[in-house]
Amino acid sequence: MIVYLNNEFLQLEEAKISPFDRGFLFADGVYESIRTYNGKLFYYKDHLKRLRKSLNEIRLLYNETEKIERIIYELINTNNINGEALIYLQITRGTSVPRTHSFTQEDVNPTIFISAAPLKRNEQEQKEGIRVSLQDDIRWLRCDIKSISLLPVIIANQSAVDAGGKEAILRRNGLITEGSHTNFFAIKDKIALTAPAGPLILSGITRMIVLELFNQLEIKVKEEFIKADELKMFNEFFITSTIKEITPVVQIDEWIVGDGKPGELTHKAQNAFDELVENY
Amino acid sequence: MIVYLNNEFLQLEEAKISPFDRGFLFADGVYESIRTYNGKLFYYKDHLKRLRKSLNEIRLLYNETEKIERIIYELINTNNINGEALIYLQITRGTSVPRTHSFTQEDVNPTIFISAAPLKRNEQEQKEGIRVSLQDDIRWLRCDIKSISLLPVIIANQSAVDAGGKEAILRRNGLITEGSHTNFFAIKDKIALTAPAGPLILSGITRMIVLELFNQLEIKVKEEFIKADELKMFNEFFITSTIKEITPVVQIDEWIVGDGKPGELTHKAQNAFDELVENY
Repeated sequence: MIVYLNNEFLQLEEAKISPFDRGFLFADGVYESIRTYNGKLFYYKDHLKRLRKSLNEIRLLYNETEKIERIIYELINTNNINGEALIYLQITRGTSVPRTHSFTQEDVNPTIFISAAPLKRNEQEQKEGIRVSLQDDIRWLRCDIKSISLLPVIIANQSAVDAGGKEAILRRNGLITEGSHTNFFAIKDKIALTAPAGPLILSGITRMIVLELFNQLEIKVKEEFIKADELKMFNEFFITSTIKEITPVVQIDEWIVGDGKPGELTHKAQNAFDELVENY
Repeated sequence: MIVYLNNEFLQLEEAKISPFDRGFLFADGVYESIRTYNGKLFYYKDHLKRLRKSLNEIRLLYNETEKIERIIYELINTNNINGEALIYLQITRGTSVPRTHSFTQEDVNPTIFISAAPLKRNEQEQKEGIRVSLQDDIRWLRCDIKSISLLPVIIANQSAVDAGGKEAILRRNGLITEGSHTNFFAIKDKIALTAPAGPLILSGITRMIVLELFNQLEIKVKEEFIKADELKMFNEFFITSTIKEITPVVQIDEWIVGDGKPGELTHKAQNAFDELVENY
């Protein structure tokens, strides 16, 4: 695998970070996951906009975001990825010795790391749906920043996997916020609910697309928190993300949703999404 | 500077981390800062106990903690540190490709990084006291784990520095929790208050020592949250940490505490602390 690190295309084994990189010491950085359809970066402008917002929120000055798109395509070519690609991109506040909490913008060069790998849809998950597990949302209060400060997410995700789930669905003060790396939708009475954009969720690009698609399909969507103790009043659930796309949820911990098969509106959303990406 | 990384003593420039280290991608790791007095590691057993607790809480299997003390002394010698030393130690869940949130213990070797640097007391700060700044505590809900998932702390600390302070004092739901990398004490009517140990603070080793010293001095201490809007009812404040030791707080944002000089019980605590470390 060839990766991009600070102006160089390198074999992964040659790509090395200083242990004094503030990304390693402090999780002082942000990231994006971006994918292609038909070899073309999907909703790239929206990812770039969110990246800039994340950088801005943590006050990380990185002035070369214009160059990133070109680098990504070069990385896809260099790695001979012929099908679809998943791009991972991370920018940290760079290397600074000695370790100090506060930062100056002047003396630090940000670190930028980008990788590209082949990506295939998980057909089985998207057809049959997955089991998820409810976990406590113990994250910080700025989940709208796509930061690499992800240990709370790691712990929640692993606890979900240990409980037999494929994803953690997070609950804060009795309200469902989102998945550990996905957004969460619940449907009842032909109305879809998903948590409102704000500091408690990372408002995903796929989430936004689904809101648009439901709008086009004239399916009503409310951006409202779902109460954890009212989950059983709903009859369809799905999660969304760049990688998971629209993945039905057919079991929440021990509770099997309905007949254990993906629901009707979930199918409609998936079909509309497939049409969108086919023609992208 | 020579550092220790995964069984090797290396020049800092030679010490390199993979960008796929889970510490870099996910802040999936923990750390300790330890110091010497008279060339001897101070309260090492307590630091080691806390390190093991942190590792355990995030389920990071690292079985070689017994070796760390020897490595640290070797690092101090190799770097020709003749005065006191500050040790920084970080363990992450190691390098794993591709990037996935969940982890398996089997296939990943943890990364251990240790650095040692000369350390001198900031005499001026400890004599004259410092200005601090109140900031919102937006961290996760397991601040008792000494994790490297520190972006919220970085943001708070930098905001405090921008506001003219040397440290951020954090406020959650109207209660003072602690500093961005220190514990916080407030004194009135000869009684000292500090936030109780629990998931909302990192209970520092120096905090624990101060509790013991106050006990010996027959000064009453309550482990209770201080209300942010009652700060002005107190007449002395200080912060504690391995590096800051006992540093008086003489100004909180625009408010100058009393006559702007460190208080009497703060002095007593400093003197008792000095006696302790001289004889350590």
